[in-house]
Amino acid sequence: MSIFRSAKLRKEMDNEAAEYISSLSFDNEILNAVIWVNAVHLRMLYEKKLLGFEELQKALNALKRIYENPPKELDPRLEDIHVFIEQAVSSASEYSGGMLAYGKSRNDAVAAAIRIRARERLLETVLTELSLADVLLNQAERYSEVIFPIYTHLQRAAPGTFGFILHSYASKILRNSSNVVNIYAGINLSPLGSAAAAGSSTPIDRLREAPLLGFEDLVENALDATTSRDYIILVLSYLVNSANIYSCIAEELILYSTEEFGLIDFPEEFASTSSIMPQKKNPVVLEIVRTKIGEVLGDLVKIISIMSRQPSGYNLDYQQITPKLWNSFREVMETANIFSRIIPAIDVNRDKALNACRGSILLTEVANKIVEECRVSFRVAHQFCAELSEAVDRNTLDVKKFQEVAQKNSILNVDYDKFRSWLDPYRITGSYRTLGSANPQEVRKMIEVDRRRVEGLRQWCRDTLEKLQKHFISSITL
Amino acid sequence: MSIFRSAKLRKEMDNEAAEYISSLSFDNEILNAVIWVNAVHLRMLYEKKLLGFEELQKALNALKRIYENPPKELDPRLEDIHVFIEQAVSSASEYSGGMLAYGKSRNDAVAAAIRIRARERLLETVLTELSLADVLLNQAERYSEVIFPIYTHLQRAAPGTFGFILHSYASKILRNSSNVVNIYAGINLSPLGSAAAAGSSTPIDRLREAPLLGFEDLVENALDATTSRDYIILVLSYLVNSANIYSCIAEELILYSTEEFGLIDFPEEFASTSSIMPQKKNPVVLEIVRTKIGEVLGDLVKIISIMSRQPSGYNLDYQQITPKLWNSFREVMETANIFSRIIPAIDVNRDKALNACRGSILLTEVANKIVEECRVSFRVAHQFCAELSEAVDRNTLDVKKFQEVAQKNSILNVDYDKFRSWLDPYRITGSYRTLGSANPQEVRKMIEVDRRRVEGLRQWCRDTLEKLQKHFISSITL
Amino acid sequence: MSIFRSAKLRKEMDNEAAEYISSLSFDNEILNAVIWVNAVHLRMLYEKKLLGFEELQKALNALKRIYENPPKELDPRLEDIHVFIEQAVSSASEYSGGMLAYGKSRNDAVAAAIRIRARERLLETVLTELSLADVLLNQAERYSEVIFPIYTHLQRAAPGTFGFILHSYASKILRNSSNVVNIYAGINLSPLGSAAAAGSSTPIDRLREAPLLGFEDLVENALDATTSRDYIILVLSYLVNSANIYSCIAEELILYSTEEFGLIDFPEEFASTSSIMPQKKNPVVLEIVRTKIGEVLGDLVKIISIMSRQPSGYNLDYQQITPKLWNSFREVMETANIFSRIIPAIDVNRDKALNACRGSILLTEVANKIVEECRVSFRVAHQFCAELSEAVDRNTLDVKKFQEVAQKNSILNVDYDKFRSWLDPYRITGSYRTLGSANPQEVRKMIEVDRRRVEGLRQWCRDTLEKLQKHFISSITL
Amino acid sequence: MSIFRSAKLRKEMDNEAAEYISSLSFDNEILNAVIWVNAVHLRMLYEKKLLGFEELQKALNALKRIYENPPKELDPRLEDIHVFIEQAVSSASEYSGGMLAYGKSRNDAVAAAIRIRARERLLETVLTELSLADVLLNQAERYSEVIFPIYTHLQRAAPGTFGFILHSYASKILRNSSNVVNIYAGINLSPLGSAAAAGSSTPIDRLREAPLLGFEDLVENALDATTSRDYIILVLSYLVNSANIYSCIAEELILYSTEEFGLIDFPEEFASTSSIMPQKKNPVVLEIVRTKIGEVLGDLVKIISIMSRQPSGYNLDYQQITPKLWNSFREVMETANIFSRIIPAIDVNRDKALNACRGSILLTEVANKIVEECRVSFRVAHQFCAELSEAVDRNTLDVKKFQEVAQKNSILNVDYDKFRSWLDPYRITGSYRTLGSANPQEVRKMIEVDRRRVEGLRQWCRDTLEKLQKHFISSITL
Repeated sequence: MSIFRSAKLRKEMDNEAAEYISSLSFDNEILNAVIWVNAVHLRMLYEKKLLGFEELQKALNALKRIYENPPKELDPRLEDIHVFIEQAVSSASEYSGGMLAYGKSRNDAVAAAIRIRARERLLETVLTELSLADVLLNQAERYSEVIFPIYTHLQRAAPGTFGFILHSYASKILRNSSNVVNIYAGINLSPLGSAAAAGSSTPIDRLREAPLLGFEDLVENALDATTSRDYIILVLSYLVNSANIYSCIAEELILYSTEEFGLIDFPEEFASTSSIMPQKKNPVVLEIVRTKIGEVLGDLVKIISIMSRQPSGYNLDYQQITPKLWNSFREVMETANIFSRIIPAIDVNRDKALNACRGSILLTEVANKIVEECRVSFRVAHQFCAELSEAVDRNTLDVKKFQEVAQKNSILNVDYDKFRSWLDPYRITGSYRTLGSANPQEVRKMIEVDRRRVEGLRQWCRDTLEKLQKHFISSITL
Repeated sequence: MSIFRSAKLRKEMDNEAAEYISSLSFDNEILNAVIWVNAVHLRMLYEKKLLGFEELQKALNALKRIYENPPKELDPRLEDIHVFIEQAVSSASEYSGGMLAYGKSRNDAVAAAIRIRARERLLETVLTELSLADVLLNQAERYSEVIFPIYTHLQRAAPGTFGFILHSYASKILRNSSNVVNIYAGINLSPLGSAAAAGSSTPIDRLREAPLLGFEDLVENALDATTSRDYIILVLSYLVNSANIYSCIAEELILYSTEEFGLIDFPEEFASTSSIMPQKKNPVVLEIVRTKIGEVLGDLVKIISIMSRQPSGYNLDYQQITPKLWNSFREVMETANIFSRIIPAIDVNRDKALNACRGSILLTEVANKIVEECRVSFRVAHQFCAELSEAVDRNTLDVKKFQEVAQKNSILNVDYDKFRSWLDPYRITGSYRTLGSANPQEVRKMIEVDRRRVEGLRQWCRDTLEKLQKHFISSITL
Repeated sequence: MSIFRSAKLRKEMDNEAAEYISSLSFDNEILNAVIWVNAVHLRMLYEKKLLGFEELQKALNALKRIYENPPKELDPRLEDIHVFIEQAVSSASEYSGGMLAYGKSRNDAVAAAIRIRARERLLETVLTELSLADVLLNQAERYSEVIFPIYTHLQRAAPGTFGFILHSYASKILRNSSNVVNIYAGINLSPLGSAAAAGSSTPIDRLREAPLLGFEDLVENALDATTSRDYIILVLSYLVNSANIYSCIAEELILYSTEEFGLIDFPEEFASTSSIMPQKKNPVVLEIVRTKIGEVLGDLVKIISIMSRQPSGYNLDYQQITPKLWNSFREVMETANIFSRIIPAIDVNRDKALNACRGSILLTEVANKIVEECRVSFRVAHQFCAELSEAVDRNTLDVKKFQEVAQKNSILNVDYDKFRSWLDPYRITGSYRTLGSANPQEVRKMIEVDRRRVEGLRQWCRDTLEKLQKHFISSITL
Repeated sequence: MSIFRSAKLRKEMDNEAAEYISSLSFDNEILNAVIWVNAVHLRMLYEKKLLGFEELQKALNALKRIYENPPKELDPRLEDIHVFIEQAVSSASEYSGGMLAYGKSRNDAVAAAIRIRARERLLETVLTELSLADVLLNQAERYSEVIFPIYTHLQRAAPGTFGFILHSYASKILRNSSNVVNIYAGINLSPLGSAAAAGSSTPIDRLREAPLLGFEDLVENALDATTSRDYIILVLSYLVNSANIYSCIAEELILYSTEEFGLIDFPEEFASTSSIMPQKKNPVVLEIVRTKIGEVLGDLVKIISIMSRQPSGYNLDYQQITPKLWNSFREVMETANIFSRIIPAIDVNRDKALNACRGSILLTEVANKIVEECRVSFRVAHQFCAELSEAVDRNTLDVKKFQEVAQKNSILNVDYDKFRSWLDPYRITGSYRTLGSANPQEVRKMIEVDRRRVEGLRQWCRDTLEKLQKHFISSITL
């Protein structure tokens, strides 16, 4: 029976129930964080002269041993990692072990441990996504002049470049990643010292413990602190956004690599063939990527469903939230990682892409030229071009038809040869002059700026991770 | 490289991508089903004289060996269980292995295998839920005369019995379980023989294969057959319903076992204490039960998100659906099982329950009596009782006040002593006469009928499971 | 103040709170059903001699008037439709109105009314979907010989026909629709007579009321009856399935109508152009269709989230469930209806479709022929064809290369000219012989069978609807 | 036919399809924002000398008229608000109307308009929530010394005050609200000037337009800009968090107001009674509040389901996202508003609350005292107290039993009278000394700090709203 169960309850927990509620299968995620929390608690007791130096030494050594040799499997009747730790520390120093729950409950300790692990996973995930952003920026540069059709409604909309598209992906990822600082700040608040729900009369100094654990500030109200999981919603919204971006990219690349679109050549090392159809080259990796938005959205639904309608104070329901959080982190990280490998292996089929940018896809910009040159309103120029669009696509336009339609639309001074010369994807792409347009120069400018953003964020994530790791090691070392 | 990959693709799949898309970690769920499907395919070839007896023998023996000694772990570069099986069969009989994809693709084979495993899990789950229904009916009988308050809006509504409440749980479970026959029929359709998407020119007889696999009928259109996962939505709606019933029961029992309600005594072997609060006895098992609706709902969202917007024909996205299905089956089964252990261990605090049924909770039925005896409308009797309700609860009602309120409401012939005598929970519970009421006789009648329903369903599930197992064994045995 | 509020509560409800909780904005959906329930209750009282004939007459007339002139807008302080009805009946016959709550609460009455309306909406929705199935079957016949590529993984997989694809849609819809009988049976159970939660001592005969309301059977246990919304999960799973089918069809048709696929010509009357891009023809209607799976899935999540963790007995939370149910019915019906208009307007681009069926897409069936003729295993033939697939697609195959690859794969007796002759989409489509294949004869056979299924289901739905309507009218007519 | 449809398409849109896809029913939400966007576009053209002063004047007047007299209902064949606006401006000045789509598409215009409206709704919602936080802080102060039990696992955990609980709510709301600045920054980026997808060759100066619309910065990449809805996920995660906090508060208050808990008196003006049960006072408003987490979660699922798997470039799917956003804003605002009215009306039943804080609930702190005084470890003191807890609750503890248990646990110097004196909720609550504890002094300190936070945030929201409104008015005024 667990070291404190027997004090109140006369019966051991039913075996199947013990397995049913055990968190041990996912507690390994927070093992180091729980070690850290307990080490800081012991140091606090020592500072407050509630623990001798020798006892502290024995206890920290016990914790360090667990860190260095994490247990493979644990008896489910131990309930959770906290009981395991208290037993292990008690073996090394009974008094130390016996003081682990002095002014500290599993409620505030696990709340602290989850935040410690979540902030670490967040930084690792963002770093992986920044690597992908980097890869995308490199490829965006490489393809910054490669003409490529831009679609809306999956219909050809305007000429652009493949680099412009790749930059739009990097841009979405980077905007999401740049939320890391705020999300991190929302996680990085210490609940430790709140005890079970209402604080305690012990001399625990929460403002001293928090920085030892790398926390910036407190969730102050003890009841709030032991039950707040709001930051998990923020983290999930970040991960949902990531997974969503990836699902959209995957969808798009699958389309481009069909025989029909034929705009990109999908790399064989990320494709499968069929066991029955000899000709197949299936973009299976992208299909799996595409499912991840469902995975993360489902985890979000699980999490919110579990945390809703909880009356205040800790309930064990909360325990079931974190496995979904760890799962979603893993899904997004693995997917970002796979994309970093796929993207550089993609080849653009330049001829097909260029051909898809000929014809009526160019007419919006031609209409803009007509506005400029002929001083008609855009609506008139648009009407004119719309009436010509079929002839342009079928290559049946001649000067007679052109003049006819011009006259019908009261455009008097439009020149047929100029019109023809405007129908050039290179010329049009080069003529874009709004900020953020597909003009290669614009794209290269954006790439430059974004590279600096990536570098800045990356440095911040790395520094923060390193600092945390140092804090951790020094907390378990005397 | 897998045995057919090399024919079309020149490069091995990227290692990380191979792990990323591998289904091997959850293919063990369908291992036996895939063996079965392949065995039937081989027999079909033999019947059509496309395979010799000796080759068939070698191949079936190879399949049987895998069934008897399932592999522990598989190389992720094998992609999935189908490749593993083809390689194993080919080792025993190259020709047999080489014919496994003749008129049979992974698309129709896996569609068949998932249905085979899903129908089995459905039957197992329903059997576990029927056991729980049985337990509930037994306890409902035991408590059929134990007065207990019935709540609406969490306010005391009417006197009833604990047996009546337990029967209402059994009733919900049973109504859900009785959908098993229809859901089973929806699963039990054979897609086998559809090949990749459009059927084939091979002499495969789908109507011969289906019964060998225990299927009742076909999903006929081959394109439909290889992509239909609609039955999974039906299964999930069944599991969501189960999990929802359990979450509601858990919520209710947690409330009843608070010190404040104090209506039931929660068994120690399903409770935890606190590491810090010496007095606690926490209903943690029920709290975990309560989260399962979130678990299953989240799985449903994952599944539907993955299957939505799929253009026709198999896409690998489908592969990611089934792990969620197996997970939800497991969650519901484990929870039904835990409840079967908890329910009999609950004790009712009879005095508190009886006391909660005194006072104004009885006034609806008193109003009914007044309608009967005094020939006023119910609205008048209701108004009269409402005005007395505070006095009834505070025990400050006397004949004078009673007469006053009666007169005010123009109820002329109501008798104070009769009124008092009506305020008796036993008498009122015994006076219920509508079908399905909390009257102990009514409840016992319903229990009897429901027991027979449980028995009928159980027999059907068991017979069906047994028949399937026999079919399977004989299909892999010569 | 409402006619019964004042009896217990001294204060009127806060105005903003009254609006916040009012269900009047969606009660119009169940207005007729509530009228019906009350009419049957009054008849019951009359049969039990608790109501005189004249009173009954006045009351039924009042109900009939509301049916014939439904109110436009109601004062939110009336709380809900039930209060409105009781007031209206009371105006006509005070005693009748005053007896509406005798042995009948809003809990059982609204539970009955929702079921009454839900079964009606289900039948109407299925009828609309059957019309769509019919349209699809007609078009499937029309296109049963029109060669069209079948995709898996969005890569060309096998030659088929557009009729085969359309039939696969009809097939999915029809399989879903055929659940109507079971789902209807699950809805069509009477909770009426359960009173608030525990039944009553009134002489209400539930078995007499049920058939008057068109119900087949009872939800017997009164507590279960007043709180069961399980059938709503079943209905939603049906609607999710429908919406999912439509989202998949929309996705597919959007792809086929891109310039790149170019397989179908999308009708202008279902397309939009762009305000800025003169050349655009956007398949906007299909894009809206594609979102409906999100709509219905979200409604399902709302519903399950609301009904989870409800302790037994009615809580007002339940009130918020039904608007989502009505919304999902409407979404699916409107979408089925739009599809019925779109499908016949689609034109297949026959040349492009045929061309997409030339080349390596044919090799699976060629491999099957080689198995048959050369007595090699399928795996050998598959390898052989895979090695030829590029040459086939690039049209660079000659007899020398052919013989070389044949020899390499130890296929000795394969004939080059035969091989070439096999590469014919018409021949291959005609050679399919498995049940449910894309062979035009097979498809026509399936169409025939499915038409009879549609007819049978349609008849059942219509008969049932008509019968219900008759029941309703006669219940409110003396 | 719309003013540009006819240029490309020969047929009017099918009537039912037009209604099916029309956004007009929810475009009123963005009417003013669309006016603003168009006004700024026209000013841009004027600055670039593409529009004369008089034309600008006419056009702005037309826009102002629409702002001042918004249309009641619009013809669905207009498709959307953008077409309506172009037609209205064209009536006033044909050239101006004809230039509205010059370098500006519906894709970037609507993206800008949604952001404009979303940032406004966000500020309004946060202001409402801050008012609620204020109300909670006031009540927290009022009840800061009123002893109240704190629960974990719905079991009594520790003595606290009702003020401490109310402060924990305020604290959660405030932490969520303080994200407003970051979320606002994420919304407040201009997509305008991106044209349809790739920018344009027009002289539109995006950096000039953005500040005129109150935007801080750009979403630069044009493709990204026209398709980014990531900020909606952030907004929804904020709203989900709010709704979740409210659902938890509602759940808790419903429990406290049951007869069994009896800790608070629920105000009549927020309760309903029953039509059948005369004694009922049902907390119906809180039940409706409780459902809102389902509402907002469902909206989030709808939104993410719709935006997932979108290939790049605008698709009409996006149109269906915003109604869910507006709905969730409304739900959260109305709920915050209702809570602001309910909270001050709640009365605490002080005697019952105090009584619930007597007995074993006090033992954790007693154990802490024993650690301090007797120099035993907490685990020993915990064991000792656990063994006494039943006797404490049953009032059967005497000095003999006390000594016995002390000896058994080797606690030698513990004093019975001291032990008894420690069992005092006032004393214990006053003895808490950790930061954030339930000690009334701690709570009052937190209230002070939080009030300043509320004030700061409120000022920021108000200033920002006011500034935006001024910008808007001056943009449509010459």
